[in-house]
Amino acid sequence: MYKAKAERMEDKIKTFSQFGDAGHGGITRYSLSPEAHMARDEFVKRMKAIGAEIETDDLACIYATLPGTDPNAKRIIMQSHCDSVKNGGNYDGIYGVMTAMEVLEVVAENKIEHKHPLTAAIVTNEEGSLYPPAMMVSGIIANDYLPPELAKNFKYDDMMASKAMEEHEGSAKTFGEALAASKYKGDKANRLSPDKYCAMIEAHIEQGPILEDNGNEVGAVQCVLGMFNYSLIFKGFAAHAGTFPMNKRHDALYAASTALCYMHDEIDKLGHPELVYTTGEIYAHPCVHTVIPDEVEFSLDVRHEDPKVLEAVMDILKDMATKTWKGCTMELRENWKRDTVYWNKDLVRFVEESMEEAGLKWQKINSGAGHDAQFFSYMIPTTMIFIRSEKGLSHCEPEHSSVSDCTAGATAAVNAILKADAFFD
Amino acid sequence: MYKAKAERMEDKIKTFSQFGDAGHGGITRYSLSPEAHMARDEFVKRMKAIGAEIETDDLACIYATLPGTDPNAKRIIMQSHCDSVKNGGNYDGIYGVMTAMEVLEVVAENKIEHKHPLTAAIVTNEEGSLYPPAMMVSGIIANDYLPPELAKNFKYDDMMASKAMEEHEGSAKTFGEALAASKYKGDKANRLSPDKYCAMIEAHIEQGPILEDNGNEVGAVQCVLGMFNYSLIFKGFAAHAGTFPMNKRHDALYAASTALCYMHDEIDKLGHPELVYTTGEIYAHPCVHTVIPDEVEFSLDVRHEDPKVLEAVMDILKDMATKTWKGCTMELRENWKRDTVYWNKDLVRFVEESMEEAGLKWQKINSGAGHDAQFFSYMIPTTMIFIRSEKGLSHCEPEHSSVSDCTAGATAAVNAILKADAFFD
Repeated sequence: MYKAKAERMEDKIKTFSQFGDAGHGGITRYSLSPEAHMARDEFVKRMKAIGAEIETDDLACIYATLPGTDPNAKRIIMQSHCDSVKNGGNYDGIYGVMTAMEVLEVVAENKIEHKHPLTAAIVTNEEGSLYPPAMMVSGIIANDYLPPELAKNFKYDDMMASKAMEEHEGSAKTFGEALAASKYKGDKANRLSPDKYCAMIEAHIEQGPILEDNGNEVGAVQCVLGMFNYSLIFKGFAAHAGTFPMNKRHDALYAASTALCYMHDEIDKLGHPELVYTTGEIYAHPCVHTVIPDEVEFSLDVRHEDPKVLEAVMDILKDMATKTWKGCTMELRENWKRDTVYWNKDLVRFVEESMEEAGLKWQKINSGAGHDAQFFSYMIPTTMIFIRSEKGLSHCEPEHSSVSDCTAGATAAVNAILKADAFFD
Repeated sequence: MYKAKAERMEDKIKTFSQFGDAGHGGITRYSLSPEAHMARDEFVKRMKAIGAEIETDDLACIYATLPGTDPNAKRIIMQSHCDSVKNGGNYDGIYGVMTAMEVLEVVAENKIEHKHPLTAAIVTNEEGSLYPPAMMVSGIIANDYLPPELAKNFKYDDMMASKAMEEHEGSAKTFGEALAASKYKGDKANRLSPDKYCAMIEAHIEQGPILEDNGNEVGAVQCVLGMFNYSLIFKGFAAHAGTFPMNKRHDALYAASTALCYMHDEIDKLGHPELVYTTGEIYAHPCVHTVIPDEVEFSLDVRHEDPKVLEAVMDILKDMATKTWKGCTMELRENWKRDTVYWNKDLVRFVEESMEEAGLKWQKINSGAGHDAQFFSYMIPTTMIFIRSEKGLSHCEPEHSSVSDCTAGATAAVNAILKADAFFD
């Protein structure tokens, strides 16, 4: 049983928090930005210092590898991302990179013998904040292994053409141009692939309050929840706010609001406390204060491990679409859906055993958010480790995890990696 | 009792519908656009043909005047606008111009003796569709007479700086530049003023279904409804759609939807069938499908003749703002309000008598929409005539009024103008 070092972890947290520091506790560090390159430089510097070999692929992913004793063994990899959302925090993404570094540092410092080469990696553009979509590069790398309905959203040429969402200092107009300008663009042959890699662990902050509420430091992630994303579209007709009597109106916003409240009531009646559903976007047309809206659309994101529960929510929506709402019709549009992705059972077991053996407060947990690991899991055995997020906050500047929890996650990781090293051929 | 001519009215409708014809039954004719200049040219041509004298003011308003028998008498004016909203119809605005023309044409054709000079006018930029705000030029001309809270929104220099909402063929960047480029920009001394004008009638389509529902051709407008416009703002906090349990959420969109439905219920309980209220705009922040909204704002436009009824609605809103909604706070922000504007009683009576004497199917009616007449009424005695709008539609291409109804409105107008001519000094 090895332990990660709290002082070294704390030093990494402080150091990486400088790159893209927005001046009020968080960072803005878009992928391939000057700030992200500073973080990459720091990663390379520290990995070279422990003797890791550095490779880059054509998507500017960086792989730092400590060789193993078996020249024929495939690599075991820990990866995460160093880019953030706009005004994000100091943990989402970079924590996984710091943990991957810490694992290699513990191995190097203690000269731990290992059969497989061990790789710490930065995967480019997970957030997709400047160049959408999120999980872009894992979507490209794993493309041949993904189900077609996922793969089609991450075609190489389309991704290269992805336009910058805003002007950011030193930003190129497209992802392809940003990539061409990066000193970390390397060789396609270096991409993560099942030919060269046999297992992956990604560490991440929980981004929810479950570990905190249960008093646990770390979580052994079992799966990424299945989800679907639909739009609910209400159509009435527009008329003048001042001249059209109330009893003749077909107000699409009144319809949408009524349906949204009804939907909450009906879904809550299903009685699944782990079901989460979110109406994050709403758009009214024409969205003029003197015009009754003729069309309103809101998004619905629903997540649960059990497909039967998702099915039950779908039944509610389908039934809703047969009704009229304040004189308006309702349509359903599917945007996407994905099945629950279960992690590799052996790797999950190694993580659980490591947490238990290290005396950590831990629990089994599911991931409600998407992560690059999810796409890579179609290529190689994969799992994840979560650490406690204070108040469950993420994608915001107050996002925080304690040095102790960060170190606990790395301790779980290093021991799980060593178990995997012994297990895989 | 004189009658307007249906054939002449129909010819005008067909002719003016060409200027800005969008190819599917309606027009886009922004103020001071090439299309609007074609309509202005047609107006001038027809008014010169009956011997009217043409003047223009510094805001490009055009005044066509038939002299009266008393050289000292002030003018009586009918005015409206020839600009439209984007993809508007062939009646809103231009119908009032065509009626003003028809009145002068009936007077000229029948050589009707009249004491006061009679003026038909085009007022610039009523819609404010390209250069906001709406009712811009009447707001400038009547500025010294308006209540301060209205006047401040229409200051000359601010209006000149109003930027074009979009690129339109031949459009200038600001209203001031568009004005400078117009051949109809004239002399400030020619502006409508109480020194030169003693009464005004504006004819307009109803823009609502009340006349149609009651089987009436025309309406004698009594007032422009008092109104207020507020924003209702709900604040919760943002969290990740996939990771945050339902029972810990403070979802601003769920809050806003719940409050919107509650507000409908409470306002409807007041039991005022003529009260109209509209939630035309809604905005969610950050409006991302994977994030629980932390702030949602919707607009509320409320209109009724009786200030006590508006007060009762305000009481409901104030009470709502003391509550929490699904864990979110609610704030009220006043955007503007205006009192009910009653038309000149003598002019209203002349319109009613003219409708009755002409055997028209008519009723008293209120205006829920704003019109230039409303600002001018602070300067001179003013009223309005409404004609039936098919299905109550306006500001859209299917907007329609029959030739018969258009002619009926003009018949009411010419006789009311002649009664005013006899009445005023």
